[in-house]
Amino acid sequence: MGTRLQPALPWALTLLLALGLCSPEAGAHRVPQCDFQEGYFEQLLDHFNFERFGNKTFLQRFLVSEKFWKRGEGPIFFYTGNEGNVWSFANNSGFILELAAQQGALVVFAEHRYYGKSLPFGERSTQRGHTELLTVEQALADFARLLSALRRDLGAQDTPAIVFGGSYGGMLSAYMRIKYPHLVAGALAASAPVVAVAGLGDSYQFFRDVSADFEGQSPKCAQGVRDAFRQIKDLFIQGAYDTVSQEFGTCQPLSSQKDLTQLFGFARNAFTVLAMMDYPYPTDFIGHLPANPVKVGCDWLLSETRRIKGLRALAGLVYNSSGTEPCYDIYRQYQACADPTGCGSGPDAKAWDYQACTEINLTFSSNNVTDLFPDLPFTEGLRQQYCLDTWGVWPRRDWLRISFGAGDLKAASNIIFSNGDLDPWAGGGIQRNLSTSVLAVTIRGGAHHLDLRASHPRDPTSVREARRLEARLIGEWVAAARREQRLQLAQRGGLGGTEEHSPTRDRTGPLGSSSGRWG
Amino acid sequence: MGTRLQPALPWALTLLLALGLCSPEAGAHRVPQCDFQEGYFEQLLDHFNFERFGNKTFLQRFLVSEKFWKRGEGPIFFYTGNEGNVWSFANNSGFILELAAQQGALVVFAEHRYYGKSLPFGERSTQRGHTELLTVEQALADFARLLSALRRDLGAQDTPAIVFGGSYGGMLSAYMRIKYPHLVAGALAASAPVVAVAGLGDSYQFFRDVSADFEGQSPKCAQGVRDAFRQIKDLFIQGAYDTVSQEFGTCQPLSSQKDLTQLFGFARNAFTVLAMMDYPYPTDFIGHLPANPVKVGCDWLLSETRRIKGLRALAGLVYNSSGTEPCYDIYRQYQACADPTGCGSGPDAKAWDYQACTEINLTFSSNNVTDLFPDLPFTEGLRQQYCLDTWGVWPRRDWLRISFGAGDLKAASNIIFSNGDLDPWAGGGIQRNLSTSVLAVTIRGGAHHLDLRASHPRDPTSVREARRLEARLIGEWVAAARREQRLQLAQRGGLGGTEEHSPTRDRTGPLGSSSGRWG
Repeated sequence: MGTRLQPALPWALTLLLALGLCSPEAGAHRVPQCDFQEGYFEQLLDHFNFERFGNKTFLQRFLVSEKFWKRGEGPIFFYTGNEGNVWSFANNSGFILELAAQQGALVVFAEHRYYGKSLPFGERSTQRGHTELLTVEQALADFARLLSALRRDLGAQDTPAIVFGGSYGGMLSAYMRIKYPHLVAGALAASAPVVAVAGLGDSYQFFRDVSADFEGQSPKCAQGVRDAFRQIKDLFIQGAYDTVSQEFGTCQPLSSQKDLTQLFGFARNAFTVLAMMDYPYPTDFIGHLPANPVKVGCDWLLSETRRIKGLRALAGLVYNSSGTEPCYDIYRQYQACADPTGCGSGPDAKAWDYQACTEINLTFSSNNVTDLFPDLPFTEGLRQQYCLDTWGVWPRRDWLRISFGAGDLKAASNIIFSNGDLDPWAGGGIQRNLSTSVLAVTIRGGAHHLDLRASHPRDPTSVREARRLEARLIGEWVAAARREQRLQLAQRGGLGGTEEHSPTRDRTGPLGSSSGRWG
Repeated sequence: MGTRLQPALPWALTLLLALGLCSPEAGAHRVPQCDFQEGYFEQLLDHFNFERFGNKTFLQRFLVSEKFWKRGEGPIFFYTGNEGNVWSFANNSGFILELAAQQGALVVFAEHRYYGKSLPFGERSTQRGHTELLTVEQALADFARLLSALRRDLGAQDTPAIVFGGSYGGMLSAYMRIKYPHLVAGALAASAPVVAVAGLGDSYQFFRDVSADFEGQSPKCAQGVRDAFRQIKDLFIQGAYDTVSQEFGTCQPLSSQKDLTQLFGFARNAFTVLAMMDYPYPTDFIGHLPANPVKVGCDWLLSETRRIKGLRALAGLVYNSSGTEPCYDIYRQYQACADPTGCGSGPDAKAWDYQACTEINLTFSSNNVTDLFPDLPFTEGLRQQYCLDTWGVWPRRDWLRISFGAGDLKAASNIIFSNGDLDPWAGGGIQRNLSTSVLAVTIRGGAHHLDLRASHPRDPTSVREARRLEARLIGEWVAAARREQRLQLAQRGGLGGTEEHSPTRDRTGPLGSSSGRWG
């Protein structure tokens, strides 16, 4: 089961494709030239069952760049792909490349099963009946096998690896270090909400913190948001559905409570996206956004005296960034799903919905009291009903906590949990150092995993400091892993090693050799 | 999904049964009075798939003793059951009870799925087609859920837990600490061959070390063993099958190479058992054995001038301990399987065979050069063929190493790996300290997990010292876990915690509370 670094296409064409796709991040002035090669790995379908799918495999996609790699010296930087096309992460994680250039690292971006082109059952993968192999545990085992195979194929068995990830990818990085510490020497888990997804914490925290970003812009903006939703609600109560449809600009007529709920979810989601992506320069990660999208959103909202129209304009930043959409198809552009922070549409969104129906707990609600949004509860009961109807599965709310420990990570080591204080996900993550090597880094003025993005002139000071710290720690982890290896190699040559706690005289030699037992 | 501590039988009757079954270990003079209650837990069938078996459950058996428990003070001692009836482990691990009495611990013995009475599919469980849920990962997840549920039901969420196990059970204890460190504060892994089962090391090591025990008895004994096997082989070559059958005492006539191989395996296995169970007093763990069975075996072997007859007598210690078997049914009493160290017969043996065909690597061979036994190779190729024929599965030789790291455990903590230097499994385990808290303890004159057994007047000094060390370390782990908890509780009350590495001023309050973000 080897890695197939040879692409299906002629090499030159793939390289062209690679260069074409790995475009410089919008607004970035200085980006190391991208040089990813796309590969496919024959990955086991089921790591936890020997019979159901036997030893059948599927093709897992990954990207690799040897551009900066100093063989024998530099580490492997391995991005634990999350809920989307691997290229979108490769194209928005310039910091990893910058760090690779500094530390002579091999860079790998591994695609998560069921996303992008890594489909266990081809196009049917995210259809009901084909989803059972989509779990966090399977994904981690994928990464473990892929990393082991890469090391073997590249002759890099002794090369330390550091895992990186943002958001769900950050969770996966932390989990890799927690569960497979013999394979990865450390993890940078950026904006990884490991506590919230374990079903702990306050279900109102998320939308409270989205609201805080708009309150932080100005009290007038916050009031504008409240007013906008209020207006919509009042019109509905009065039965003036057409007015709402007209002023907000929905494609379809509205008429029911269900439509109101959908409209509210649709609109609320715009705020979520603006808050998460509140970078100081334009980005293309989730849609095309301008610099400081929260500020711009507030400006748009307040530009209209009629608040609904202002809300419509704000929503346009997310749902009509091209400026060409004539109306909002509120049922198509936003799909209510098991993730109230937004699912999107398409196969990747379906896969994520399945994960949110099984292991990932995202029962966030807004209540119009501690947040600016309408009262939209998403209780465990509602989730269970939705998941049963949609996927025929029962969520296991307690599993992630039992399996990974949520915030109880004192036995772990070498993990950085970074969070931006503008990011609504931050409140669901690790915000305090848990030990001398499980550290929390707070990035003031940072949104969703800003630190993973390439350096930019408009970066706040905090993220530059954070990246410096991360670079230093990662360098230390790699160096320590190298030292450890040299020590072990030296020990294997003789009878070295500490025997302090052996209450008897040790008569055996190194593992595997015959011992003069009775000599 | 609660724990059902109420037995299916009337309480008094179960207590009687419990007292009756938990008999004092043979030869032990001082045993804390057994007081186990048998319970059944509704355990998830499949922890790694939400659809195949949905949320269906099976009844997992466990034993619990509150006899010594000092609620609020003492820890939980949790035995991670291995490949057999849980009572046999409970009845042969007196040290855990002694330690529980000293440290005020609640004691739990958890049965491993597919063994004893913990059968996912009842009696059909170990039949082909029903075995897919038998993996190490499923078993560990069982223990994690069971322990969490027990804590909840007993109001002991803050009670630290220590896991214990011997042999495969020792592997599971180590794996629990490695994979679920937030649930267990430390592990005593006795005679846990974590390196060998990961497919590493020398395939001749095991039988070389069995041989060493008999060589250590006397060179004459060793020669006697060689001579016995030599005689059998020579007679077969001459075609004198009946002579062998008569002199060795087989029930069936012998006639083929297949019979010879079976006879060799049958006989070799007797040596394995004697070596593993070479305790200084009589035991009932694997069969009924006298004190110092290796010595007794050698005495019997050398008591007959005709070596085959001596071998017959030695084999009787294992295969005819009652003295009532008229002959050796070599195909029934020893089943060649994927574990060349012996499978036994019955459902439990089948389950273990399945494990040895999937994740557990036991491709040990004897070669008649570095050991006293006939040349009986058990290559990966032979294993694959056997496993495909028997179970329709392909072993994944590399999985255990990828998943658990074999001997690369520097990131782990709080694990004691103890090994007796008479135990042939010792050479496949951890024999050197790997860090300040992953320690190797060698017990001179000790066989298979002697330290887990109850204290006995004939214990060698080494095992007393080992138990003292283990008791001390376990006490320290529990105390440290308690301190850690108190610290965390204190921190939750305020803004405590270390912020050394936060490059920005931390503005957020404790998790889940609203923060004066812009104040």
